Amino acid sequence: MARWRLVVAYLGTRFHGFAAQPGQLTVGGELESVLARFLRHPVELTCAGRTDAGVHAWGQVVSFDAYADVAAPDLQRNVNRSLAPEVVVRRAEVAPPGFDARRSAKARRYRYTILNRSEPDPFLAATTWHVEAPLDITTMRLAADPLLGEHDFGSFCRAAGSSLVRVVHEAGWSAPEPGMLRFDIQATSFCQQMVRAVVGTMVEVGIGKRRAGEMSGIIARRDRAGTGQLAPPHGLCLWEVTYP
Amino acid sequence: MARWRLVVAYLGTRFHGFAAQPGQLTVGGELESVLARFLRHPVELTCAGRTDAGVHAWGQVVSFDAYADVAAPDLQRNVNRSLAPEVVVRRAEVAPPGFDARRSAKARRYRYTILNRSEPDPFLAATTWHVEAPLDITTMRLAADPLLGEHDFGSFCRAAGSSLVRVVHEAGWSAPEPGMLRFDIQATSFCQQMVRAVVGTMVEVGIGKRRAGEMSGIIARRDRAGTGQLAPPHGLCLWEVTYP
Repeated sequence: MARWRLVVAYLGTRFHGFAAQPGQLTVGGELESVLARFLRHPVELTCAGRTDAGVHAWGQVVSFDAYADVAAPDLQRNVNRSLAPEVVVRRAEVAPPGFDARRSAKARRYRYTILNRSEPDPFLAATTWHVEAPLDITTMRLAADPLLGEHDFGSFCRAAGSSLVRVVHEAGWSAPEPGMLRFDIQATSFCQQMVRAVVGTMVEVGIGKRRAGEMSGIIARRDRAGTGQLAPPHGLCLWEVTYP
Repeated sequence: MARWRLVVAYLGTRFHGFAAQPGQLTVGGELESVLARFLRHPVELTCAGRTDAGVHAWGQVVSFDAYADVAAPDLQRNVNRSLAPEVVVRRAEVAPPGFDARRSAKARRYRYTILNRSEPDPFLAATTWHVEAPLDITTMRLAADPLLGEHDFGSFCRAAGSSLVRVVHEAGWSAPEPGMLRFDIQATSFCQQMVRAVVGTMVEVGIGKRRAGEMSGIIARRDRAGTGQLAPPHGLCLWEVTYP
């Protein structure tokens, strides 16, 4: 038996998220069934981040146990032959015993991309949120600052039983090219819909509907009703997962 | 009556090319029917380049006559509301009388993009040709040089009744980022499948299956059988059309 680790990229457009669900097309479900065919035994995947329907990944990490003796390039080629180009195994390797894609992860990084031009772009439509109204990146940067550090992110998370305290290491807007805005955020982990809720609220700051100064209060109130619209899933990408 | 000119971008993936064909989903057919609904009369489009099934465009140009008195922003917004994000009107304007998107064009520029890495990329799969074998850009550049100038491009064109003499102003490979190769070619006009046949042949040079020095002879022989495989349509994009 060997514990395996894969780094996986996918275009989330057609998938009902990562987590396997009966009767739904999911990234995890597809991966599990291809791996099971290859290894000739059932496979149960653990992933670093359970992305929602329509969300993409560049650096999703999954772990699983293989009872068959296989070579990494063969496993990678076999999965990619079945699932590429929508789902691509970027790296496949045997992990240290006890490695768990979710529990061993020290941090996750998500990237949200906005196309901020009057006209849409057919080539970016699948992976960016098209916002027509001009966005002010300066106020959006001010709105991002209060996210840093340890907070209860209840204001930005779908109600859940467990703690919503998270530590954000990095959160910032950049403009990689004219008319394109990118938000990168790294944290220990994220609660459900957190990045989309944060981005939706900051976009309301960027169009002038809210002031950047409101952000600290919104976080402190821990009230889901006080935040903005949820940014659509197709602008979001699980970018990278960090392990010790 | 006014002669109109639109600059149109589209993701060709789902379309059976530009030219309207009964019973097929085509870019031209969709545009004609949306414009006809908006203008309340039948519309016949002329385009600068009849792209094949699966080929994309960033700067396709079309012209047509409108008998209704409409404002450019209204027309643009109306078409985009129906067809975006797959098909986007980037610019709409009244053209000088007698303007014809095809006959008035002085030059067309096409761009072909190759992803040259061992693994595919889900985010580039729709718009690049994934070639696993390492390509030698130096020999591909040498192979591109003989294309420049006036030639009968019969070697690279689907048999047709009319002349296959074309003037190529520019043809060159660049590497905008590691693992990505881009071929830009500008000519007075192109015959059918010319760019894809040229790229397919140059890729055979890049992997070492042919020598760059063969290119002049291939052009001179005007024999379709002497060229390489046809590069797939999804790496090709009609980039820009030039008018006086």
